[in-house]
Amino acid sequence: MQQPLTEEKVFKDPVHNYIHVQDTVIWRLINTKEFQRLRRIRQLGTTYLTFHGAEHSRFSHSLGVYEITRRIISQFERSGYKDWFPEERLLTLCAALLHDLGHGPFSHSIEEAFQMNHEDWTCRIILENTGITEILQEVEEDFPQKVASVICKKYEHDIVVNLVSSPLDADRMDYLLRDAYYTGVNYGTIDIDRILRVLRPYHGRVVVKESGMHAIEDYLMSRYQMYWQVYFHPVTRSSEIILRQVFRRAKQLFQEGYSFRFMVEPLTDLFRGKVNVQQYLQLDEALVQATFMQWTSEQDELLSDLCSRFIHRKLYKYVEMESLDMETIDEIRRSFASAGLHPEYDLEIDFPTDLPYDVFRPGEGFHGKQILLLDRQERLREISEVSDIVRSISGIHRGRYHLYYPQDKLEKALPMLPNSIKDLFDVR
Amino acid sequence: MQQPLTEEKVFKDPVHNYIHVQDTVIWRLINTKEFQRLRRIRQLGTTYLTFHGAEHSRFSHSLGVYEITRRIISQFERSGYKDWFPEERLLTLCAALLHDLGHGPFSHSIEEAFQMNHEDWTCRIILENTGITEILQEVEEDFPQKVASVICKKYEHDIVVNLVSSPLDADRMDYLLRDAYYTGVNYGTIDIDRILRVLRPYHGRVVVKESGMHAIEDYLMSRYQMYWQVYFHPVTRSSEIILRQVFRRAKQLFQEGYSFRFMVEPLTDLFRGKVNVQQYLQLDEALVQATFMQWTSEQDELLSDLCSRFIHRKLYKYVEMESLDMETIDEIRRSFASAGLHPEYDLEIDFPTDLPYDVFRPGEGFHGKQILLLDRQERLREISEVSDIVRSISGIHRGRYHLYYPQDKLEKALPMLPNSIKDLFDVR
Amino acid sequence: MQQPLTEEKVFKDPVHNYIHVQDTVIWRLINTKEFQRLRRIRQLGTTYLTFHGAEHSRFSHSLGVYEITRRIISQFERSGYKDWFPEERLLTLCAALLHDLGHGPFSHSIEEAFQMNHEDWTCRIILENTGITEILQEVEEDFPQKVASVICKKYEHDIVVNLVSSPLDADRMDYLLRDAYYTGVNYGTIDIDRILRVLRPYHGRVVVKESGMHAIEDYLMSRYQMYWQVYFHPVTRSSEIILRQVFRRAKQLFQEGYSFRFMVEPLTDLFRGKVNVQQYLQLDEALVQATFMQWTSEQDELLSDLCSRFIHRKLYKYVEMESLDMETIDEIRRSFASAGLHPEYDLEIDFPTDLPYDVFRPGEGFHGKQILLLDRQERLREISEVSDIVRSISGIHRGRYHLYYPQDKLEKALPMLPNSIKDLFDVR
Amino acid sequence: MQQPLTEEKVFKDPVHNYIHVQDTVIWRLINTKEFQRLRRIRQLGTTYLTFHGAEHSRFSHSLGVYEITRRIISQFERSGYKDWFPEERLLTLCAALLHDLGHGPFSHSIEEAFQMNHEDWTCRIILENTGITEILQEVEEDFPQKVASVICKKYEHDIVVNLVSSPLDADRMDYLLRDAYYTGVNYGTIDIDRILRVLRPYHGRVVVKESGMHAIEDYLMSRYQMYWQVYFHPVTRSSEIILRQVFRRAKQLFQEGYSFRFMVEPLTDLFRGKVNVQQYLQLDEALVQATFMQWTSEQDELLSDLCSRFIHRKLYKYVEMESLDMETIDEIRRSFASAGLHPEYDLEIDFPTDLPYDVFRPGEGFHGKQILLLDRQERLREISEVSDIVRSISGIHRGRYHLYYPQDKLEKALPMLPNSIKDLFDVR
Repeated sequence: MQQPLTEEKVFKDPVHNYIHVQDTVIWRLINTKEFQRLRRIRQLGTTYLTFHGAEHSRFSHSLGVYEITRRIISQFERSGYKDWFPEERLLTLCAALLHDLGHGPFSHSIEEAFQMNHEDWTCRIILENTGITEILQEVEEDFPQKVASVICKKYEHDIVVNLVSSPLDADRMDYLLRDAYYTGVNYGTIDIDRILRVLRPYHGRVVVKESGMHAIEDYLMSRYQMYWQVYFHPVTRSSEIILRQVFRRAKQLFQEGYSFRFMVEPLTDLFRGKVNVQQYLQLDEALVQATFMQWTSEQDELLSDLCSRFIHRKLYKYVEMESLDMETIDEIRRSFASAGLHPEYDLEIDFPTDLPYDVFRPGEGFHGKQILLLDRQERLREISEVSDIVRSISGIHRGRYHLYYPQDKLEKALPMLPNSIKDLFDVR
Repeated sequence: MQQPLTEEKVFKDPVHNYIHVQDTVIWRLINTKEFQRLRRIRQLGTTYLTFHGAEHSRFSHSLGVYEITRRIISQFERSGYKDWFPEERLLTLCAALLHDLGHGPFSHSIEEAFQMNHEDWTCRIILENTGITEILQEVEEDFPQKVASVICKKYEHDIVVNLVSSPLDADRMDYLLRDAYYTGVNYGTIDIDRILRVLRPYHGRVVVKESGMHAIEDYLMSRYQMYWQVYFHPVTRSSEIILRQVFRRAKQLFQEGYSFRFMVEPLTDLFRGKVNVQQYLQLDEALVQATFMQWTSEQDELLSDLCSRFIHRKLYKYVEMESLDMETIDEIRRSFASAGLHPEYDLEIDFPTDLPYDVFRPGEGFHGKQILLLDRQERLREISEVSDIVRSISGIHRGRYHLYYPQDKLEKALPMLPNSIKDLFDVR
Repeated sequence: MQQPLTEEKVFKDPVHNYIHVQDTVIWRLINTKEFQRLRRIRQLGTTYLTFHGAEHSRFSHSLGVYEITRRIISQFERSGYKDWFPEERLLTLCAALLHDLGHGPFSHSIEEAFQMNHEDWTCRIILENTGITEILQEVEEDFPQKVASVICKKYEHDIVVNLVSSPLDADRMDYLLRDAYYTGVNYGTIDIDRILRVLRPYHGRVVVKESGMHAIEDYLMSRYQMYWQVYFHPVTRSSEIILRQVFRRAKQLFQEGYSFRFMVEPLTDLFRGKVNVQQYLQLDEALVQATFMQWTSEQDELLSDLCSRFIHRKLYKYVEMESLDMETIDEIRRSFASAGLHPEYDLEIDFPTDLPYDVFRPGEGFHGKQILLLDRQERLREISEVSDIVRSISGIHRGRYHLYYPQDKLEKALPMLPNSIKDLFDVR
Repeated sequence: MQQPLTEEKVFKDPVHNYIHVQDTVIWRLINTKEFQRLRRIRQLGTTYLTFHGAEHSRFSHSLGVYEITRRIISQFERSGYKDWFPEERLLTLCAALLHDLGHGPFSHSIEEAFQMNHEDWTCRIILENTGITEILQEVEEDFPQKVASVICKKYEHDIVVNLVSSPLDADRMDYLLRDAYYTGVNYGTIDIDRILRVLRPYHGRVVVKESGMHAIEDYLMSRYQMYWQVYFHPVTRSSEIILRQVFRRAKQLFQEGYSFRFMVEPLTDLFRGKVNVQQYLQLDEALVQATFMQWTSEQDELLSDLCSRFIHRKLYKYVEMESLDMETIDEIRRSFASAGLHPEYDLEIDFPTDLPYDVFRPGEGFHGKQILLLDRQERLREISEVSDIVRSISGIHRGRYHLYYPQDKLEKALPMLPNSIKDLFDVR
C-alpha cells in the first residue's frame, strides 16, 4: 500500500495548475465517498451570496493543501535538511489531505448552532470504521490513529504537526490563494513559490530564512486584507446570521414537538444532538438548501420567512456603530418588542474581531502561533521584532459593531418605534 | 423605471473584474427570486466531477453575458454606428441578462430525460406573472413580450436578436472565458477587448472588421478546444449518463406505482409531465442532489445503485472505438443480457459530435450561423473563405464512439461473458 | 487640432491591455522624435541588472500614465462630478503624457552626477521650439506654457495639477503595475479598477470615497514593498554607484584635459555643463552604453575598470551594517588608502531612506502629500487617522547601511589591511 | 566543477516565476561577459517599434530555454525513462543555455546584410578561447567541442540534439511564452506544464504521449498566430527594411571610400568582412543605435535620412497586394526612377512565408521537423495524420505582397508619377 503509483496522476487545478498524486494511498483516499462528500460543502459557506464566484468546495481546497504540503516536503528532501524526517512523508500528506474532512454544511454556522466541532468529526471519520479508516489501516494497523493525532496536534514529531497546522501552514496558504482566485479579489496573490523556498524545518518548527521576511510580510498583509475585505464582509455575516436563526428556530420548533411538513432523518438526529458518523456523512449543503427551500412553505411564519430570506437572498440590512453598550442594546430590544418586532430574531449584533498575528512578548518563550526568522548565525527572532508592518497588524483587531435587522419588518413597525430608534436605523 | 441608478453598482467578478449595473431595472431583475435561483444551477452541470474547480453557477454566467453585451453596446454608441438603435439598449440588456433564466438543474440531462426545453421555460418565466414579469411591465406594458421575442429570435430588429444569439454573441464569449477560468484550462483565454473592438452592427447583423480576422480565428479555435477538452470530456459524459439513468429509472418506477421512501412535490409533477412555472422554479440542483442522496437507500436496487454512483462519484468506465456498427451493439447487448447484466442500463453508447462552424456554400446566401468580415470597401465575406484555419474546423466534427459501463458489475459477470466481449472491454 | 481622431487608435500594452488614443494632438505628440526618444530610456535605469525582465522604457510608462489619466477623467465625466472641469481634459492628458519627457539616460545617476533635474528638462523640451512645442501651439498659442505649468505644479486649477502629480496620481499607479509586471514580482498588483472607482475630484484635490480605504491601504503597501524589494535592491544600488563613478571619473579626466580615445559631442558639452535642448535630446542609453563599451579600453585604468564592471556586470559587493558612525568611515578610508586602495572609488556608503507616506499632524492643515478620505457626510479625514496599516508605514523609513566595494581589489590588498577591516568586509 | 552549488540560486523571471540554477558551471557561464552581452541584444529585434513592451533581451530568453530544458530533464529523470541518458544532463543544459550566444545586434537584419550566421558565431564563441571556453574546459578538456556539436546537431546522442533543437524544443516554448508576455498579446499562452508532462524520450527523439495531442495542437496554433500577428507584423517588417538599408548604404559608402563623420572600429571590420571573435563580442544594439543616432547628421543624405527614419520611427508605409508579377515591379521601379525616386531604396517588396509545420508524406520516413505521437501500443504516428487542425496549418503558408515606400518622398514626387502608380500606392 505504501508503493507509489505506476504513473503519477494529476488533477487540473486553477490555483496550482496541477495537483500531483504519486501515492496509491492518496489516490484511494481521494476516491472514497467520505472525501468526495467535500465536493458538496463550500469552502466559504455563504460567501457566494456576496462574491458570486466563491462557489468552490472544500474538496478543491483539500487537494490544494495536500499539494502545497507535497511541495514543501519535496523541497525539504531536495535540500536534505536534517531536521526533517523523510519517513514521515506519507503520514504528513495524509493528514494534510484529510485535515478538513469533518466540516459540515455551512460549517461555522452549523457548529455554532449545534455546539459541534469539525476537528472532532474529522477524527471520528478517520477512526470509526469508514472507507477512510480501512485504507489507512492497510498502511499500518495504527496509521488511522497516527493521522488523527497529527490533526489533533498530539503526534510525537512536532515538525509533522507544524506542517499541518501553524501560522505558515499549507492550509492558510491554499485558502488565501484559492479564495482570492474564486472571489476575484486580488489581495491574496501571495508569491507561494518564494514562500516555499524560504521555509526550513528547524527543531520541530517550520521557520523562515531571514532573507524571506518581506515575503512573509506580504503573506500576513494578504491574510489581513482577506479577513476584512472578504471573510468579514457584512453581507456574508448577514447571511450567516439568517442561517443560524433558521437552525435555531427549527431546533426550537422540533423540541416543542412542532410537526414539520418536510423533514429528513439526519436532521432529526441533529436536532436531538445524537448524530452518528454515518448520519453525519449524509449532511451536506444540498440537503440544507433543499430543506430550506421546502421550509419556505412551512406553517411557522418565522421559519418560513427566514428560509425565504436565505434562499431568495433577501438578507438583513445593517447599520455600523463605532461603539455600543449593553444599555443601548437593551433599549433597542425593548423598543422592538413593544413595536411588535421580535427582540431576538429581528436584531442581531455582530462585532467581528480577529487576531491576525500574535507578537512575541519579552520574558515569555516562543509559542506556536508565532513566525520565527532564522538568520545566518542560526539565531531565531520572532518576525514582529524585525518588521514594523507585522507589528502594526499584531494583536487583536476589532471591527465596528454591526446591527442586523429585517428592513421590511422595521418599516412596517415604523409608527410604533420611538424617534431615537428610527434615527439609529436610518428609517423614516 | 427606465431611469439610471443614482450611483452605478458593481459586482466583483473574477472574469470581467467588475460587472457594472447602471439601470434600476437591471438591478431589480437581478434581485428577484427567479434570477437568484440561477445561483443553485451550475453553469457546467456535472463537469465539476471532472474539473473540480468548475462549480460556477448560471447566475455568474448570466451577469457576465449582461456585462459583455453592455460593453458591446457602449462601444457601438461611442462610435456612433448608424446601424445600431440606441433606443433598444435596455431591451437588449434585459434579454442578455435573462437569456438563461429557464435552465433547470443539470440542464442538458434533465431536458433530455423529460423532453423539455430551457428556452421555453425562459419565456414562460418572463411572461407568466412572476417577479420578473412585474418588473418588466413597469418599463412598458408589453416589455415582457418584447424581451421574450428577442430570446425566441422573433423580435423585429435583427440586430437586437443577433446581439443576444449568434455565433459571436456575448453568451459564447462569456462561457469560453468563464469555463476556462473555473476549470483552470487555458484554452479559453480569448482577447475579448480586441474582439469587442472589431465588432460592427451592419444591416441587422454583428459583423467583424476585416483586420480582426485573426482574433476571430483564435476565438473559434478556443471554442473548438473547449468542446473537445472540456465539454465532451468522457468523465463528464459518464456522469451525465448516470444522471439520465437515474431520471429514467425514477420516472419508470413512478409510473409503475413504486412507493418511494423519499419524494417531494415538484418531482412528482415532473414525472407526471405537468410542472407549472411555480413548481419549476423550485427545481434546483440542491433538490436533485439531496433527493439522490436519500435515494441511495431506496429499495429498488438499480435506482439506489445509480444514485450511489452519482453521489459518491463511482462513475462508469469507458472504452473508445474508432467505429461501431449496429450489429456489434446488438451482440454486446445480447451478451450482457445473458450474463445477467442489464442490456440498457449497463451499457450506454456515446458519440459526441459538434458543428464548430458552418461554412458558406457558394450559391446559398449567408445565414445566421456564419461570421462575416467587412472590408474597407464595405464588402462582406464569410470568414472561412479567407481563413484556412476556420475552414479546417468547419463542418460536423465527430469524436470516437465511447462505450460506458459499470466496471464492477462487468467484473462480477466475467465468467458468463464471451471472450470477444472481454477483449472489447479490456477485462479479464 | 482639438478635434478627435476619426477612428480611435490603440497601442497593445501588457499592463492596460490597450492604450486608447482619441485625440489628434495626443497621436501627433506620440509620433514626435522627442517622445520617441523615451523608447531609448529605460523606466528603471540599471534595475535590469538585478531583475532581467525590467528592460521596459519610459515610452511605455508614459503611455500608461496617459491611459490611466484618461480613464480617471472619463470616470469623472460619466459621473458628472461638479468639481471637475471638462474643458481641462486635453490639457490634463497632454501633461500626463509628457510628464517624463525630460528624463535623461539612467536618469537618477546622471542627474546626481551632473546636478540636473529632469523636470526642468521636461519644461524646456515643451517650451523651446521643439516638435512638441509646435504641436501644442496649434491647440492654442500659450498651450505649451499651460502644459509646462501643470507639470511644474503652478497651473491655476489645482485639480489638474493634482491629477498629474499627487500621492494617488496616474504616474505612481502605472509604475507600480508596470514595474511589477516587468520584474515579475507580484507586489505591485493593485486593483486599479477599484481605485479608479473610488476617486473623486473635491475642491481641487483628488480624494477617496471612504469605502475605498482598504484599496488604498493595499496600494500603499504595494508601494512600500516595491521600494524595499525592487527599487532599493542592493544589486541595483551597486550598479548605480558604478555608473555614477564612471560619470564622475570621466568628468574629472575631461576637466584635467585627458585625451579620450573615444568621445562624442553631446558628452563633451555635458561635461562642460552647457548642454542645450537639441544636444540633450541626443542623450540616450544607447549612447551611454556604447561609450562605456568603448571606454573599456581607455588608457586611464580607473575609468576602463569601472566601465568594464558596468558593461560586464562585475559589480561591487556589499556588507550590511545596522549602524555606522563617521569615525568608522574615516578609519576604513584611511586603511584603504594605506593598503593602496582608492579611498573614494573603492568604497561607497549607501543608506536608503524613503518616505512612504506622510501623516497628518494635528494643528497643521492637510498638505499635498496626504491622501484624504471623504465620508458620506462630506467630511475629510487623512487616511492614517483611520488606518493602522497606513500609520505603521508612515514617516521616514530607513534601511541599513550598505558598504559597497570591489571584492577582487580588496582581496589583492588583503595583506595590507588590518584585521578589523578584514572582519568588517568578511574577507580573509 | 561538475559539483552542484551549495545552495540553489534563482533568478526572478516573469514567465517561469523562477529560473533555478543548481550547477556551478551554469552559474559561472551566466556570469561571463560573453553571456552578459546578450542583455544588450533584444530578443525580437525591432519589434519594440510595433509592440512597445517587447524590449526583452536574449539574455532572459536564454535563461528561459535553460529552465525549460532543466524541467524536461528533471521530469525524464523522475519518471526513469530508459531512453534518456542521465549522464548527459549537464551537457544538455549548457547547450540549451548557450544556444543563442552568437546572435548579433538586430540579428536577422545584420545576418542578411553581411551574410553571417549566428550559429557559426555561437560555436566560435564557445570554441575560440573565450571566458566560455575556459569554464567548459574545466568540466572536461573536450567539453566545449561537445557543446558546440550539440548546437550544430552533430552530437552522437540524438536525444540531446533533439532536446536543444526540434519542433518541440525548449527554445520555441520559451519564445512563444516570453514574446506573448512582453508584447501583451495572448496568443502564446500555451500550457507548458501540460506539454512537459506529455513529452517522452523515445529512440533518440522527443515524442508526445498520444493523450497530449490537443496540447500540441494548441501549441502549434499559438505558434501560427504569433507568426502572423507578431513576428510578421508589417510595421516590424518596415523597420527591418530600413535597418537593412542603413547597413547596405553604409557598407556601400565604406567601400567607395566615403569619410564618415562618426565611425568605430568593430564596424569598419564588419564592413571589411573580417570581424574576429573579440570584435564580434563588442557588437551590440547600443552600438548600432548610438551609431545610427550619430549618422543622422552624416553628409550623405540617403544615409542620414534612413538613420533618422529608424531612430525617430518615421517608417515606410506599405500597400498590400494579393498578387504581384515581375512586370509590375519593373514598371514601378521605372516610374520611380523617372520621378526622381530611388528605384531600390524607395521601394522594397516583402512577401512573408512560413512553414508552420511540415507534414508526413507517405512513403518517406519521419524527419526531424515532425512531431510524433506515441500511443499505448508504442506505435508512432505523425501528428498531422491524426489532427485536422495541424493538417490545416501545415505546408508553406504565404502572406500577401507588401510594398514598402517612404510616403513623404512619394508625395513630393507626385506630379511626376503616372496615375496607375498613384492608384497603386493610394496617393493623390
